[in-house]
Amino acid sequence: MRQYKKDNPLSYALGMTLVFELIQSHPKQVREVYFHTKHRPNEHTEKLIRQLNDYHIPYQEQDKIFNILSPKDNCFVIAAFEKYESSFSKGKSHIVLVEPENAGNLGTIIRTALGFGIDHLVLIGKHVDFFDPRVIRASMGAIFHVRIVTYPSFEAYKMDYSSQHFYPFMLQTNQILGSAPIESPYSLIFGPESQGLDDGFLSIGTPIRIAHNKAIDSLNITSAISIALYEATKQEFISKGTHHE
Amino acid sequence: MRQYKKDNPLSYALGMTLVFELIQSHPKQVREVYFHTKHRPNEHTEKLIRQLNDYHIPYQEQDKIFNILSPKDNCFVIAAFEKYESSFSKGKSHIVLVEPENAGNLGTIIRTALGFGIDHLVLIGKHVDFFDPRVIRASMGAIFHVRIVTYPSFEAYKMDYSSQHFYPFMLQTNQILGSAPIESPYSLIFGPESQGLDDGFLSIGTPIRIAHNKAIDSLNITSAISIALYEATKQEFISKGTHHE
Repeated sequence: MRQYKKDNPLSYALGMTLVFELIQSHPKQVREVYFHTKHRPNEHTEKLIRQLNDYHIPYQEQDKIFNILSPKDNCFVIAAFEKYESSFSKGKSHIVLVEPENAGNLGTIIRTALGFGIDHLVLIGKHVDFFDPRVIRASMGAIFHVRIVTYPSFEAYKMDYSSQHFYPFMLQTNQILGSAPIESPYSLIFGPESQGLDDGFLSIGTPIRIAHNKAIDSLNITSAISIALYEATKQEFISKGTHHE
Repeated sequence: MRQYKKDNPLSYALGMTLVFELIQSHPKQVREVYFHTKHRPNEHTEKLIRQLNDYHIPYQEQDKIFNILSPKDNCFVIAAFEKYESSFSKGKSHIVLVEPENAGNLGTIIRTALGFGIDHLVLIGKHVDFFDPRVIRASMGAIFHVRIVTYPSFEAYKMDYSSQHFYPFMLQTNQILGSAPIESPYSLIFGPESQGLDDGFLSIGTPIRIAHNKAIDSLNITSAISIALYEATKQEFISKGTHHE
């Protein structure tokens, strides 16, 4: 057993919350569950072990994997799972990330998207490994409830989803978010953290800018995506009143 | 010279961008500037040294401070500055953070707030040290362009600013952001990352919730504040059209 690597066929959910989220959504992917010898059994442990028995998932006590994957953390349970592929349903809205670089950002974006009801994510080009345990942790388990597909280029994605309404978010336009409605099914498209989308996206769909003043160069990507999701889904939430399921 | 500590009367701006932002906004606070012996002079260096001479700020070549403050980074210039206090102008809108815990979050929030034109921030109760170099870095220098005041309790703050419109953001209400206008001058109030605002804030001003579904427990604080700032300032930006100054 070694440090997690991108080409590893397995990844890991660290901590009780993530392990439950994983088993709830992808029980057949779970290969084994590990308990630290310092783990103190509680009602969550009992519930977890019932689920592991129901799904015939093996489990054992072992400290080595904790030392490798989580040496500093207060983590006492880890699930090893086989990575899986997702496919998209038709007619859904998407978040599209071109060359996302940062694991923590990607996890946060996945979580925020799920909160606003967008569970179809597209990663274009060279991208951070979305099964990296740091992404899983930053998503707080939300990654197990979304579908992620990858494309080598935006052109390849666009060919498969030509009926989407494309909204590239970029500073090089004067069309401001909120000044016109976002039409469904939409694809909200964001560039890499370090530089944003290039000018080529000015000819894709309806480029949009989130208005802010010149005191800052740009919003960070998680702020920008949060705002875009809020604006795109707002009418739906307001018309439904309180929490929608 | 030692590792930065909260009770240190000096703090540090790391890297050329932050050093320029500091000197632009608070030249009299800068005590000394340090260049790493591996620093390669360029046009920025020349400009910086002209400013240092103009303001009579001493500078020297020295590696020790880089080893202490920035051992892993590609950082070749550091400014040491005396911490300073700010005071508020009347009639301004505020971001109010109750017991903020995380340096990176605080820096990001400061930057986002400045981008939406809100440069008055209030920290209530026990809070992360806002002059921590990690906050300064996460703010990308925005901290030097905002005013931050602290209060021991929300009650003390409320007494000083009783004419503000208070909007506590909390999950325990059914009033949804966007369903009614935010009136100026406003105070957008957010609780600690780990637990949010307590029920006591239900009787303060107009409690508001950002609508999201039940697939996630809550939005992270930087997402929530980004969305709140966007909504509160939106009409102003749309009416001004493009970038406003």
